[in-house]
Amino acid sequence: MIIIGEKINGTRKMVAKAIQDRDTAFIRQLAEEQAKAGSTYIDINAGTPPAREPGDLVWLLENVQAACDLPVCLDSANPEALKACLEIADKTPLINSVSGEKTRIDGVLPLALKYRTNLILLALDDAQGIPETSDGRMDIIQRLVDLALDGGLTQDQLLIDPLVTAISTGTENAVIAFETIRKIKVAFPMVHITSGLSNISFGMPLRKIINRTFLAMCISAGMDSAIADPCDKDLTGTLLAAEMLMGKDRYCMNFNKAYRSGRIGA
Amino acid sequence: MIIIGEKINGTRKMVAKAIQDRDTAFIRQLAEEQAKAGSTYIDINAGTPPAREPGDLVWLLENVQAACDLPVCLDSANPEALKACLEIADKTPLINSVSGEKTRIDGVLPLALKYRTNLILLALDDAQGIPETSDGRMDIIQRLVDLALDGGLTQDQLLIDPLVTAISTGTENAVIAFETIRKIKVAFPMVHITSGLSNISFGMPLRKIINRTFLAMCISAGMDSAIADPCDKDLTGTLLAAEMLMGKDRYCMNFNKAYRSGRIGA
Repeated sequence: MIIIGEKINGTRKMVAKAIQDRDTAFIRQLAEEQAKAGSTYIDINAGTPPAREPGDLVWLLENVQAACDLPVCLDSANPEALKACLEIADKTPLINSVSGEKTRIDGVLPLALKYRTNLILLALDDAQGIPETSDGRMDIIQRLVDLALDGGLTQDQLLIDPLVTAISTGTENAVIAFETIRKIKVAFPMVHITSGLSNISFGMPLRKIINRTFLAMCISAGMDSAIADPCDKDLTGTLLAAEMLMGKDRYCMNFNKAYRSGRIGA
Repeated sequence: MIIIGEKINGTRKMVAKAIQDRDTAFIRQLAEEQAKAGSTYIDINAGTPPAREPGDLVWLLENVQAACDLPVCLDSANPEALKACLEIADKTPLINSVSGEKTRIDGVLPLALKYRTNLILLALDDAQGIPETSDGRMDIIQRLVDLALDGGLTQDQLLIDPLVTAISTGTENAVIAFETIRKIKVAFPMVHITSGLSNISFGMPLRKIINRTFLAMCISAGMDSAIADPCDKDLTGTLLAAEMLMGKDRYCMNFNKAYRSGRIGA
């Protein structure tokens, strides 16, 4: 399971303040705790205006690299910011993300190809936004995977996000995500599938229950990555349980180890 | 979703004592609270020796019928006890269960056919116990469904239990259950699929997390019923969330209603 730790995000008030104040200790703490909780990548999103973003994203990268030995997920659509980080990254980053939107294909994809990074692909484009059917999403995904593979990346370097829209706005919205996940697994057996989860519960009560149930069902359909808070013991418990139930945790060793170390449980 | 409320079970100490003492109020309370929490059937299991069971099961049935207007699930392999209850049941009961075992086919199946009850079928038999593969389970299920349909029951009256063995004793044990559920849905589109869930987590820590994650994944595979405690808000929240995410809760009405009435949530 590829866990992309989502906590260093400038759209969160505390993180925005830490970026503004160059609060090194705060950012390093977020990186460390997410590394300890089992992250594969540490997402960094500066959330600042384009002119400031390159400096801010580099500062975030430097602090994550000082705090832990995990690669980052560069969460930006700004080519200048991405390039500055790619030049100094210790480990191969993941870029979040390329979609079918022209600005992303022109500005972000070439950097992913040049630096041979791992790459998240989103099932949306300029003409359609997020298509309402799984077939519509697969058309975009097929185009993006072709571009990435033609450019020299491997299926294993790609994480496809089927995109999740709120269940409160459409009774079939989770089913469309499950279908898209299943179709991706058939079309591209070696790619990974990831998603932010919390959109599913937008506008609903008991969001944590809906999010963790959705996570289990997505894993059941073939998802093998999540953009999430690994320090959320409840969510991580669900994630490790689902992976175990999918037959991917021999002798239940990961689950039991996480329990004994206090990563999951009360 | 067909919820079989499991709390009136003589293997539980408090229930055994209530049966012994003929504590009418205690049993009625269990029936009422499970009805209020959204049960479809109230399971009754006397758990007493064969000679006592007919009288005890009839007493349980009478008290459930006095407490609520739900049908019961007759959880017994004792033909005498079943027959005594079938004679006086107000509403068509569910019988739990017929397996491929000779005693069940000879003793229980004829009663289900004669009284045209709903019926749980278990994927095990005398020769194999619980087969280790989904194909092995499907062979037994095919035979049992044929017997039931030939005897005049309809697919819709049948609830098939794929059977669940502990993940701690086999890394693939949940996957085998998921596969069996998917195969049942293909072979018999109108039957229902049910299961007790808690076997999956036997021998593991954090059993509630494992059970509810497994529930979500089973529903994702096509399960539409559970033998469970409907008063467990956490489990019921998962169940209603999963049903909603499967596209079976138009405008999220059931989930929101359950939240507002306090059936789910803190």
